[in-house]
Amino acid sequence: MRRVSIGLLGCGTVGQGLVELLSCEQARIRNQFGVDLGIHRILVRDGEKPRRGIDSRLVTTSAMDVIDSPCDLVVELIGGTHSAGAFIRRAIGLGRHVVTANKALLASAPELFSMATLHGVRLGFEASVCGALPVVRVLQHGFAGDSIESVRGIVNGTCNYVLTRMEEDGLELPEAVRQAQARGFAEADPAFDIGGVDSAQKLRILARLAFPNLPAVKVETDGIGAVRAAAIDAARERDSVIRLIAEARRVPGGVALSVGPRVIARGDPLASVREENNGVVIRGRASGELLLTGKGAGSMPTAAAVLADVIGIVAGNMDQAAVA
Amino acid sequence: MRRVSIGLLGCGTVGQGLVELLSCEQARIRNQFGVDLGIHRILVRDGEKPRRGIDSRLVTTSAMDVIDSPCDLVVELIGGTHSAGAFIRRAIGLGRHVVTANKALLASAPELFSMATLHGVRLGFEASVCGALPVVRVLQHGFAGDSIESVRGIVNGTCNYVLTRMEEDGLELPEAVRQAQARGFAEADPAFDIGGVDSAQKLRILARLAFPNLPAVKVETDGIGAVRAAAIDAARERDSVIRLIAEARRVPGGVALSVGPRVIARGDPLASVREENNGVVIRGRASGELLLTGKGAGSMPTAAAVLADVIGIVAGNMDQAAVA
Repeated sequence: MRRVSIGLLGCGTVGQGLVELLSCEQARIRNQFGVDLGIHRILVRDGEKPRRGIDSRLVTTSAMDVIDSPCDLVVELIGGTHSAGAFIRRAIGLGRHVVTANKALLASAPELFSMATLHGVRLGFEASVCGALPVVRVLQHGFAGDSIESVRGIVNGTCNYVLTRMEEDGLELPEAVRQAQARGFAEADPAFDIGGVDSAQKLRILARLAFPNLPAVKVETDGIGAVRAAAIDAARERDSVIRLIAEARRVPGGVALSVGPRVIARGDPLASVREENNGVVIRGRASGELLLTGKGAGSMPTAAAVLADVIGIVAGNMDQAAVA
Repeated sequence: MRRVSIGLLGCGTVGQGLVELLSCEQARIRNQFGVDLGIHRILVRDGEKPRRGIDSRLVTTSAMDVIDSPCDLVVELIGGTHSAGAFIRRAIGLGRHVVTANKALLASAPELFSMATLHGVRLGFEASVCGALPVVRVLQHGFAGDSIESVRGIVNGTCNYVLTRMEEDGLELPEAVRQAQARGFAEADPAFDIGGVDSAQKLRILARLAFPNLPAVKVETDGIGAVRAAAIDAARERDSVIRLIAEARRVPGGVALSVGPRVIARGDPLASVREENNGVVIRGRASGELLLTGKGAGSMPTAAAVLADVIGIVAGNMDQAAVA
C-alpha cells in the first residue's frame, strides 16, 4: 500500500470539510485506489482555537512547517493571492504536487501551470470553479476529442440564490441579499459576488481550458446590482427568467468573455438552475450541448472536488481501479 | 512529436464519424497534446463498397490485418459480443490499448478489465454509455473522493424520444415508434430499446463504476411497451411526466438495479430531459446531486467520446497540456 502524505494549508470551512471527508472515505480510497492518504500537518491562523475532529498535534501556524517537511502533496485552501501564491510556488519548487481551490490566484497567475510542468509536478484545481461540478475535468478530458464552440454558465451561487428569491418571493435586491447572508450563501460584503467579479474569475479559468491557445479579444463584466424586481416580473410575462450568465465564445481572432445579467427563455437549460446551484453548458462542434448542474459551493461539495483531485494525482491508473 | 497509430475495427455510423472527426481535429490535437494520431487500417464488412472520406488503401476485411500489424491502439466499433470480444482479447493480448463503444460486450464480459490490467494496457469505454455525456469519466474521476449513493438516469434516447412524442403529440406508442424510426432514432426492430434491455446494459456498467465492490442484490428490467397515452395524460394532470428511468441504488448488502417507466414530477431534474437526449443524476454523500444532460447517441457525439478516450490513453498528462 502506497502511503501519501498531504500538507494542508488552511483549516476554514473547506479545510475542515476535507479533514472530515477524508476520515469518512479513507478506507474506501485505500480499498479502491490502493493509496493510503494521510494529512501530516495543517496550517492554521490561530493555533490555540479548538477544532472539532482535528488532531491538535498536526496543527501549526508556520506554512514552511507544512510545505518544507517531507510530504507528497500540498493542498492550498487559505484563499487570497499573495501568501497563497508564495506558498504554492515554494511547494512546486520543492517538487510537491499541489491541489488548490483558489480561483482568484489561478485567474491572475496562469504561470503557475507552466511552473508545475517545469518541475514535473501536477496542479489540481477542480475545486476552484463550481465546487462539485467536475467542469475542469470535463473540459480537459471529456472534450479532448472535440472543438469547443462556447462555454456558458451560472457559476456564482450567491447571485443565483438572490435572483431566485427575487423571482419567487417578489423581493427587491437588498432584501434578497440579506436573506442570502442569513442562509450563509453571501458574504458580509457581497460586492465581489454581486458585482460579477467572482464569475469573471471563474470564467477566465474555464475559457483557458476550453480555448487553450486563443487570446481574449473582448472582456465585459457586469453584475446583478442593477436588477430590479420589476424587470424579473417583466421577464416572467415573456416566459423568461433573469440569470447572471458567464459566457466564453469563440469569435474571429480569439475568445469573447462576458459576464452579466441576461433574460433567458424558460426552455434554456440554464433557466432550470435555481437557488444556490451552478450550471454550465459546454457546446462542442461534434458533441452538441452538454449541461452540468449541481452544488457549486459549500464545505463538503468543495472538499469532495479537492479530494478527487488529490486521488487523481496520486493514484496512477484510476480507470481500471474502479472496475477491475 | 509522438506518432500514434490506430487500428479501427468497424466503419459504420460511428466509425465513419470517427474518421471524419479525426481529420477535422488532427491539427488541434497535435498542437494541444503533442500527439499525431493516424488510422493505419480499417476493418470493414464489404471491401468493395465506396466510402466517402475513407482512403480505400486503409480498408481490409481481415480483423487480424488490423490487430496484428503494428499499432498502438485498437478502436472497436463493430458491436455485438462474439467477434468483438475475440478481437478485443487478441488486441489486449498483443499489448494494444483498446477503446470500445460496445456496451453489450462490457456488460457481459467484465473480465476484459482485469485482462487489460494484467497486460498493462488501458481499456477506454466512455462511448459505451450515453454517447457524449462523460458519465464514465465523471464516475471514475470526478467522484473519486466521495461515496456515491445512487445513479439515476435516462440512458436510452429512443425511448425518451418515443415518450416525448406521446406526451407532446398525443400519439400512442406504435405511432411514436414509427416516427422515431423515420427520424433515425429507433432501429427497424425496436424491441431491444423499447423493452429496456439497452438501458439495463448501460446501467450495469454505470453501477460497476459507481459501486465497484458491491454485488447486485436485486435486478428489475421493464420497458415502455405497456405505456399508454392515457397514462401520460393522467401524469400531466398531476404535473408529472413518464420517463424510462434506470437506477442503481446502494441498499443493505449491495446495489439494487432497476429499469422501468416511472412517473416523475416536473421538478425532478430528469423531467426536463426531452426528445432523444440522455440525462444522468449522480448523488454523492458529500457532493450532493450532479446532473449531466446531452446527446446520448449519434455518429458525431459518440465519435467525440471515442476520440476523447483515445487521447486520454495516449497523451500522458492532459491536465497541464490544456493550460500551460
